[in-house]
Amino acid sequence: MPLDDYRITSGKRFNLASFDPASKPMSQGDKETDLACITRLSDALDAQQDIFYAEHRRKILVVLQGMDTSGKDGTVRSVFRSFDPLGIRVVSFKAPTPDELARDYLWRVHMQVPKAGEIVLFNRSHYEDVLITRVHDWIDTQECERRYTQIRAFETLLTETGTTIVKCFLHISKDEQKARLEARLADPNKHWKFDPTDLAERKHWKAYMDAYESAIAATSTPECPWYIVPADSKTHRNLMVAEILAEVFRQLKPAYPPARADLAGIKVE
Amino acid sequence: MPLDDYRITSGKRFNLASFDPASKPMSQGDKETDLACITRLSDALDAQQDIFYAEHRRKILVVLQGMDTSGKDGTVRSVFRSFDPLGIRVVSFKAPTPDELARDYLWRVHMQVPKAGEIVLFNRSHYEDVLITRVHDWIDTQECERRYTQIRAFETLLTETGTTIVKCFLHISKDEQKARLEARLADPNKHWKFDPTDLAERKHWKAYMDAYESAIAATSTPECPWYIVPADSKTHRNLMVAEILAEVFRQLKPAYPPARADLAGIKVE
Repeated sequence: MPLDDYRITSGKRFNLASFDPASKPMSQGDKETDLACITRLSDALDAQQDIFYAEHRRKILVVLQGMDTSGKDGTVRSVFRSFDPLGIRVVSFKAPTPDELARDYLWRVHMQVPKAGEIVLFNRSHYEDVLITRVHDWIDTQECERRYTQIRAFETLLTETGTTIVKCFLHISKDEQKARLEARLADPNKHWKFDPTDLAERKHWKAYMDAYESAIAATSTPECPWYIVPADSKTHRNLMVAEILAEVFRQLKPAYPPARADLAGIKVE
Repeated sequence: MPLDDYRITSGKRFNLASFDPASKPMSQGDKETDLACITRLSDALDAQQDIFYAEHRRKILVVLQGMDTSGKDGTVRSVFRSFDPLGIRVVSFKAPTPDELARDYLWRVHMQVPKAGEIVLFNRSHYEDVLITRVHDWIDTQECERRYTQIRAFETLLTETGTTIVKCFLHISKDEQKARLEARLADPNKHWKFDPTDLAERKHWKAYMDAYESAIAATSTPECPWYIVPADSKTHRNLMVAEILAEVFRQLKPAYPPARADLAGIKVE
């Protein structure tokens, strides 16, 4: 099964460079076929989510990480927009506020974890605290290693208390980012998405890839895997994230709660 | 220094029964002397807290645990009432709400941790999740051990990110609890504090002592010590908690932030 090859469950022998952002391992053929496949998957996912919500027992956390323009917002829109809003919540993590900086970096993250029956999408996450922070040397390698351990412990807490965590690295190439940034500049309707600081971050591309490789290697476990999602193709990216969710539901097998015997005999008068 | 004998930094050779709830190890003599000592300590603590708040860098978390009537509320009132409310916050943890139960048990706790410059008092805490839960067999020993590990990891996160944690077990005898419950029943003004379920919990005294001993042994580290506070005497209890806070400040040595050179030359016109 191709998905397995993109699921990282251990840091051993993990090499980000071996994944081609332009590849389309989940593709069934041409774009039309893939779009039809996404539609079918979405319908199945929605049905599963309804039962998952009714079950009100377990939780799902989807972490979306990737370079600027890698398609985090687009994934949310394309793969999850038809989900029941009662059971799904998107949390976008920006630069921490002074109030957030006054606590430990996992504080604001813990506050936003999914509750029973809920699916939460993290648009960026606590991983920024070992990515941008490391790239700019705001933290040294020793602090970074300490945070890897803290993050593993935090995610272990979540999984041991009923949360399924899937972490998706939306993997684009430096050339694809260039094209997308140029597209934003060329289209006045996309100017609002253009942030000049993205250009500054882009200069650190190699350092970011190193930081991602290191963070993914250090925090991939069988219980909290990372998925490397080749994302130069938006269609492929959406298809693969939908397949990942389908796999999660296959594992969880959501079921409606059992019938309540204590309700027998109640008459509606 | 007597305080050291009551600071538990390791589970090795820890035996709760070796601590006498009626003892007064910190006492300087008679009650009047001790009350005068508390007053002096309070003044010094208040001064230290002002600087700690101005420093706006580190955090202090005081966990108060103990059987019903052991004096958690009383400690807050007596030792901390003169602190600057800007820099102190009390969090009382009750039975978790449905909304809290829908997350992991550390979720609501993490939300309430102190921010920079703040002192937070936990009136009961995440330790209830390995105490009442264990006594009533709502969790088995395996789950309890798992939680000890989760709690250690959680507290390590807090300490590694700038929080000093002190955990106080307010240690009263079963006889002293009887006297205090009877006093509540005898005084109509104290009836509001009487909870019939306390009587049910009291029947599990031995199991509670075992659960406390086990939890304290499993979660005492040099960085996150437990203090055993003999608390049959309210005056002694207050004196000892004040001494513990004084010791914390001696270790932390709060200091005002350095003068800002960029403010030089500014004229008030």
